[in-house]
Amino acid sequence: MSLIVVGSVAFDAIETPFGKTDKIVGGAASYISLAASNFTGSTKLVAVVGEDFPQAFIQHLQHKGVNTEGLQIKQGEKSFFWSGKYHNDMNSRDTLATELNVLADFDPIIPESYQDCEYLMLGNLTPKVQQTVIERLRKRPKLIVMDTMNFWMEIALDDLKQTIKMVDVLTINDEEARQLSGEYSLVKAAIKIQAMGPKYLIIKKGENGALLFHGKEVFFAPALPLEEVFDPTGAGDTFAGGFIGYLAKTGDISFENMKNAIIYGSAMASFCVEKFGTERLVNLTEEEMNTRINAFRQLVKFNLASV
Amino acid sequence: MSLIVVGSVAFDAIETPFGKTDKIVGGAASYISLAASNFTGSTKLVAVVGEDFPQAFIQHLQHKGVNTEGLQIKQGEKSFFWSGKYHNDMNSRDTLATELNVLADFDPIIPESYQDCEYLMLGNLTPKVQQTVIERLRKRPKLIVMDTMNFWMEIALDDLKQTIKMVDVLTINDEEARQLSGEYSLVKAAIKIQAMGPKYLIIKKGENGALLFHGKEVFFAPALPLEEVFDPTGAGDTFAGGFIGYLAKTGDISFENMKNAIIYGSAMASFCVEKFGTERLVNLTEEEMNTRINAFRQLVKFNLASV
Repeated sequence: MSLIVVGSVAFDAIETPFGKTDKIVGGAASYISLAASNFTGSTKLVAVVGEDFPQAFIQHLQHKGVNTEGLQIKQGEKSFFWSGKYHNDMNSRDTLATELNVLADFDPIIPESYQDCEYLMLGNLTPKVQQTVIERLRKRPKLIVMDTMNFWMEIALDDLKQTIKMVDVLTINDEEARQLSGEYSLVKAAIKIQAMGPKYLIIKKGENGALLFHGKEVFFAPALPLEEVFDPTGAGDTFAGGFIGYLAKTGDISFENMKNAIIYGSAMASFCVEKFGTERLVNLTEEEMNTRINAFRQLVKFNLASV
Repeated sequence: MSLIVVGSVAFDAIETPFGKTDKIVGGAASYISLAASNFTGSTKLVAVVGEDFPQAFIQHLQHKGVNTEGLQIKQGEKSFFWSGKYHNDMNSRDTLATELNVLADFDPIIPESYQDCEYLMLGNLTPKVQQTVIERLRKRPKLIVMDTMNFWMEIALDDLKQTIKMVDVLTINDEEARQLSGEYSLVKAAIKIQAMGPKYLIIKKGENGALLFHGKEVFFAPALPLEEVFDPTGAGDTFAGGFIGYLAKTGDISFENMKNAIIYGSAMASFCVEKFGTERLVNLTEEEMNTRINAFRQLVKFNLASV
């Protein structure tokens, strides 16, 4: 079933303890679309870039079946640019530069052919823009998943809360869940955040896995222990893309199937961090993915009889 | 099968964001013995206390089936005392006071009735003392599990490495695994640490669960998300006690059964943190434990068909 992906398509320059890149393609919607395209042939992108953005990457997306009709290319303008440096523990980073450029006045246009989409993934963006996308869809999608970050909690909390109220699934990290709820316990935080609107909450914990909360139910998926974590940029977006891509593919939004979707999201994220940027996602084979899904199954499997 | 537990039996004074205690009973071997006594009726304690230590706690251990013949009570001396204050995130703490007292020259005595034990749990202690216990057993136990901490890596690394070489399972936390191996990746750290001797490595990650490594195999057990984490003191020791207690009960030291043992250890630890000190462990029912084991099973269960 068809899926709209909204978010940044941009340039990143990344420094990790293992290396450094010049400007490479990044942005939430790049990672989400690439990950989702492994599951559904009907991914539809809404984003904006400047004339400096490489045609080759757009063609690659199209080649993976991503519809780019909703990707605006602004002549005479520059793409969004972010630059950051990871600390030695890879769990924290400093932002070195943020140039909004075309993102400063991003007005998301929904092509007519995108209407009637059943799945909507709102990648991290200004909450107002995320809200505009929902409002511009004539029919509410079957499932709306929204990603956001602490930055918006600090500068646009009211807008953020309004947007959160409109979505089904919110994905944030553990620190953001604590900040948004004012609760240290993630169980208590999940209860408070669900009361803000979303019936499902995914708390991302990076190398420590992810939790899915729904009412009193909770599911935990570990991150795969990896020999090399090369660059964590985009791991959360890739996770979200795998998650909603799998749901769109199966057309089943039950809690039980969301667990499977989280395993697929975690598998996709485990590939993402193995190379810089989107490099590892671009040429992923189905066999590699299946091998990794099996590794997840083995990782948590135990055979204690029911007591 | 019978199990020897070595470690501190002591007093703690604890401050957390949720409250503060006067001197209460603590110490690695207190937590380990209490946890293990839920599984095996043949737990044998080796420790030392001063004459200030409450008889009531010793009687409670005996009541739970713990043999205290190897617990030395030093007249005219004081028990080991530790005092600490947890930060708001409960993941880090400051030590406010450490009074070694009887622990300063602890000479572990192994009663004749303890010889021929099949399981040995070396709680966190001076590595030399841990080694002495192994040497004083005429027959090497079937399984030796050792806990230690960063403190010994800093002040007694050579002794520590000698002792590590003699054990089957080492339990340390993620930061300690990184420190001991010089590797940031836990997968690489596990390979290096296994090369130091132990065939099994358990990496404890607190609220983020635990990893069991053995050769190329890895198992992950999450921590149960809890509404209230009241006091993390002793959680790692309780985990170790549940782990080795379950192995001693079942008599099966295969990798597959160690996975089960880790789930039981994690369940025990989840109780430990719900109240101050050993309070929650003292009156634990079998039904409470079974309910929690089922919660672990639900937490990680997903139904993706094999691919």
